Amino acid sequence: MTAPFRATVLTLYPEMFPGPLGLSLAGRALETGAWSLEARNIRDHATDRHRTVDDTPAGGGPGMVMRADIVAAALDAATPEGDARPRLLMSPRGAPLTQARVRTLAAGPGAVILCGRFEGVDERVIEARGLEEVSIGDYVLSGGEIAALVLLDAAVRLLPGVMGGAESGTEESFENGLLEYPHYTRPREWEGRAIPPVLLSGDHGAIARWRRAEAERITRARRPDMLGG
Amino acid sequence: MTAPFRATVLTLYPEMFPGPLGLSLAGRALETGAWSLEARNIRDHATDRHRTVDDTPAGGGPGMVMRADIVAAALDAATPEGDARPRLLMSPRGAPLTQARVRTLAAGPGAVILCGRFEGVDERVIEARGLEEVSIGDYVLSGGEIAALVLLDAAVRLLPGVMGGAESGTEESFENGLLEYPHYTRPREWEGRAIPPVLLSGDHGAIARWRRAEAERITRARRPDMLGG
Repeated sequence: MTAPFRATVLTLYPEMFPGPLGLSLAGRALETGAWSLEARNIRDHATDRHRTVDDTPAGGGPGMVMRADIVAAALDAATPEGDARPRLLMSPRGAPLTQARVRTLAAGPGAVILCGRFEGVDERVIEARGLEEVSIGDYVLSGGEIAALVLLDAAVRLLPGVMGGAESGTEESFENGLLEYPHYTRPREWEGRAIPPVLLSGDHGAIARWRRAEAERITRARRPDMLGG
Repeated sequence: MTAPFRATVLTLYPEMFPGPLGLSLAGRALETGAWSLEARNIRDHATDRHRTVDDTPAGGGPGMVMRADIVAAALDAATPEGDARPRLLMSPRGAPLTQARVRTLAAGPGAVILCGRFEGVDERVIEARGLEEVSIGDYVLSGGEIAALVLLDAAVRLLPGVMGGAESGTEESFENGLLEYPHYTRPREWEGRAIPPVLLSGDHGAIARWRRAEAERITRARRPDMLGG
């Protein structure tokens, strides 16, 4: 049987996978077949005996560029005709990943994820194969592999049956346009700090109002960009 | 000898580390001693025989909350007096990680990184231990571990001697407030697509102008937020 969510990762470091996704929530979901993960080595599609996948940038400059022909061969081999999965390129030039995009991906058949390395990937294969460039944030990584782990972890936890509590996931950060309210648990007092009394009042209406107000206060203080526009 | 950049990760899944950071650029830097990584199990600071680290949220709601006393004990054991490293909590409620923050971290003595799990961490330990909440993006992960891998990978590649080319890192996305220009390499023509002729002209001034214009065009199209304000 095919897993409902199939991930194929194209990388120069297949041994990085499943890595942290082999443990905890994602690891258990991998075992139960809620998703599948295949890591393919781009280097297997090199054509010379040194298994070269990159070359110097046209126009000069530092670093190396992944070749269009090699990357295309790897993509084509991984995606038979009719494969409806989106083809993503993890890249700091991409559209920022959002929880909404994660939800859409998790509701689909999976993803084919190309992990960039070196200075980048030849632009022509991005165009020719319709790759969607996705950025996990405004910083630069040594390659797309850890970004792929981020995207997959975020998506897999939303697959049916993966998260424990049915309610979990609806009250958390970003799902309602706000950062999450503060959490407290036992002990009631710790180092002279008490749990806010309202949370111990048993008044569910008051608790809900307090949490909403706190979520708004924290969002306003830390992420005014989420409230504006 | 102590590594110039020391990372300590507090987690319920120490076996996730070094994970992908044990390979490639970060892995070689770990071997050469450019940085060190210690993963400590928060559960070692539990006080009951079930090694419990979490409890139900005060005020009700789904999920579990990591206890302030256990987390504080783990933090205190990992950070002797005089440890000047910033203490970070990977959390979607945090300040968004930027390349500027990564540069500052990489220039410092390292970081102590607490990986949140479950619904979150008791707010009192965040306040009492002055934890800096850091978010890698506007999406939710199953825990802070993969976020910690992101932060460390971004920082380690900037450590002295880690990246190959001395120039690499200065022309890439975010370093000059723009996304990176498109890259091309051999073959000159591929599937009927040619490398833009200017890149093959040998005219370094024209190449620099074209790349600058392309970086601006791509940034305007994909990330107008980076140009505004």
